[in-house]
Amino acid sequence: MSEPRLNRRITLTARPQGLPRTSDFQLETQAAPEPAEGEVLLRTRFLSLDPYMRGMMDEAGPGYAPGVRLGQTMVGGTISEVVESRNPRFKVGDTVLSNVGWQDYAVSDGAGLTPLGDLPQPSLALGGLGMPGFTAYVGLLDIGEPKAGETVVVAAATGAVGSVVGQLAKLKGARVVGIAGGVDKCRHAVEVLGFDECIDHREPDLKQRLAVACPDGIDVYFENVGGDVLDAVLPLLNLHSRVPVCGFIAHYNEKGGAHGTDKRTQLLATILARRVRMQGFIILDHYTDRFAAFRRDMSQWIAQGRIRLQEDIVDGLEQAPAALIGLLQGRNFGKVVVRVTDE
Amino acid sequence: MSEPRLNRRITLTARPQGLPRTSDFQLETQAAPEPAEGEVLLRTRFLSLDPYMRGMMDEAGPGYAPGVRLGQTMVGGTISEVVESRNPRFKVGDTVLSNVGWQDYAVSDGAGLTPLGDLPQPSLALGGLGMPGFTAYVGLLDIGEPKAGETVVVAAATGAVGSVVGQLAKLKGARVVGIAGGVDKCRHAVEVLGFDECIDHREPDLKQRLAVACPDGIDVYFENVGGDVLDAVLPLLNLHSRVPVCGFIAHYNEKGGAHGTDKRTQLLATILARRVRMQGFIILDHYTDRFAAFRRDMSQWIAQGRIRLQEDIVDGLEQAPAALIGLLQGRNFGKVVVRVTDE
Repeated sequence: MSEPRLNRRITLTARPQGLPRTSDFQLETQAAPEPAEGEVLLRTRFLSLDPYMRGMMDEAGPGYAPGVRLGQTMVGGTISEVVESRNPRFKVGDTVLSNVGWQDYAVSDGAGLTPLGDLPQPSLALGGLGMPGFTAYVGLLDIGEPKAGETVVVAAATGAVGSVVGQLAKLKGARVVGIAGGVDKCRHAVEVLGFDECIDHREPDLKQRLAVACPDGIDVYFENVGGDVLDAVLPLLNLHSRVPVCGFIAHYNEKGGAHGTDKRTQLLATILARRVRMQGFIILDHYTDRFAAFRRDMSQWIAQGRIRLQEDIVDGLEQAPAALIGLLQGRNFGKVVVRVTDE
Repeated sequence: MSEPRLNRRITLTARPQGLPRTSDFQLETQAAPEPAEGEVLLRTRFLSLDPYMRGMMDEAGPGYAPGVRLGQTMVGGTISEVVESRNPRFKVGDTVLSNVGWQDYAVSDGAGLTPLGDLPQPSLALGGLGMPGFTAYVGLLDIGEPKAGETVVVAAATGAVGSVVGQLAKLKGARVVGIAGGVDKCRHAVEVLGFDECIDHREPDLKQRLAVACPDGIDVYFENVGGDVLDAVLPLLNLHSRVPVCGFIAHYNEKGGAHGTDKRTQLLATILARRVRMQGFIILDHYTDRFAAFRRDMSQWIAQGRIRLQEDIVDGLEQAPAALIGLLQGRNFGKVVVRVTDE
């Protein structure tokens, strides 16, 4: 009999205050589970790392789901391979989109598994062809509704979501101004992704430089960072501008409590005076209605070279905590995917 | 020859810090203007007082228009009578909706004058049949989009806008919870206007009492006050709720600067987690598209007794400053109209 399969998993062991530390996670090894009748055993090939995971580390969760309990496996989207099957819908060797979290193996009864067929680069199903790309598509196109000639601003411009937002806005004929951390990211946004301009938020005078880059104001601000970027955007919002609200990576590591003036009043006054439509969305709501259209459009745009996707591949499950911390600090360059195994 | 007509007017003499004082205004008397060929001389019968006027007292204005200059006549909507006419479109005795501000007489070339015909109660053209009623109509119906069985919350529940918002929401089959200052206003909201509940914000525990009054959460919050009411509303907003943003009477007299925690973060987190659509609007944008429908619908609902309007009539132009200050403090009961003359 062969050796029993060992499952490495990373659990949450402490709730972070502010930025997580690697000591908030723990790597454990135990026997892999055995699939019961009707189940499959999945082996994780790729694990997606995404900003929402910071919210899952809080007891209250990110607002739309409860947090991970202490001692439980961290959640996350995965690309997995079926390595045992007792379910007639799946055969050994199938590649599926799954959601089994930060571990090597998991069993599933097949609910929530999406077969990926022979996707040439399966990790894209965690990025541009998956949740982050779909987030950009729904948020920008359905809520932001950019029109040709309008100005679209997006931060985290080379990230998994922001990079697609900006390229979609260019496809719609908008002027696109990105915001990113560092010269290299900004160069990539302009030279590779085709943004009209990209502003390095690490340099001083963000407000002034954004104003110069947006001489006709801002018609769509895709909100994924909050903080100083939002401060710089608000005075530039045009009449009837749209602000799809996707997330606030700048806020995720705040410890809460007082810091400065009441910016809510200023935000509300801008929404009123500029007739802004600000709308939050959680991508989970939109799969039924819009995922098929997204997958069709995006596959075509990728094939045509009109959308370019940048992956930041990290090797080894044990690197996931440090990679998530880096992501929350903006250290990544493109969509962060952990290659759990390349066997 | 008869005595020359004297024009009393109230000018802005100082920019208020916080709540205005009567000393920020000045009553002046001068000769009334003479109409040139093509003009009419208007005599003000009723002057509307509205919360937006506080913003007009600031140099920067309320955000969508510049403020009144020092020494200039305070702006405001009026019901006027044509007392001299050198314009063939108007004859002496015509009653018109106008915008000549806080004064007895003004000349006009006819632009912006709306003949009111034989409206039985012309002051309603400043309230339920005018800008405040139209604000309620567009904000609630077009942006709030209440559905039967949903819960609608509106503050300033007996005010010119809030009272119509709540009654329109009832017409649409919603459960309506008002918020108002004092027992008498709350009783009026429930017994006369037909709200399901009304909460007195002067009593303690607003948050808890609002939660009890909204056991199924809040689907539409018509934002016209901000401040503590918004604090109480945010935790109760349902998924996919709508927040038409009309104004913030609680903020208008803030002096700015620091006060407490950064509530913007909390607001943004709620918008995201609850997929809230928050949309500012300025009623001036909507006259072309929607005013005819509003006037038709509202006239019918008033005639049918389905919408009831409460006016708070103040006698005498010289009372306007104190009446505006009272309005900003919530001392009025219904739409505030100054009866400038009843001759």
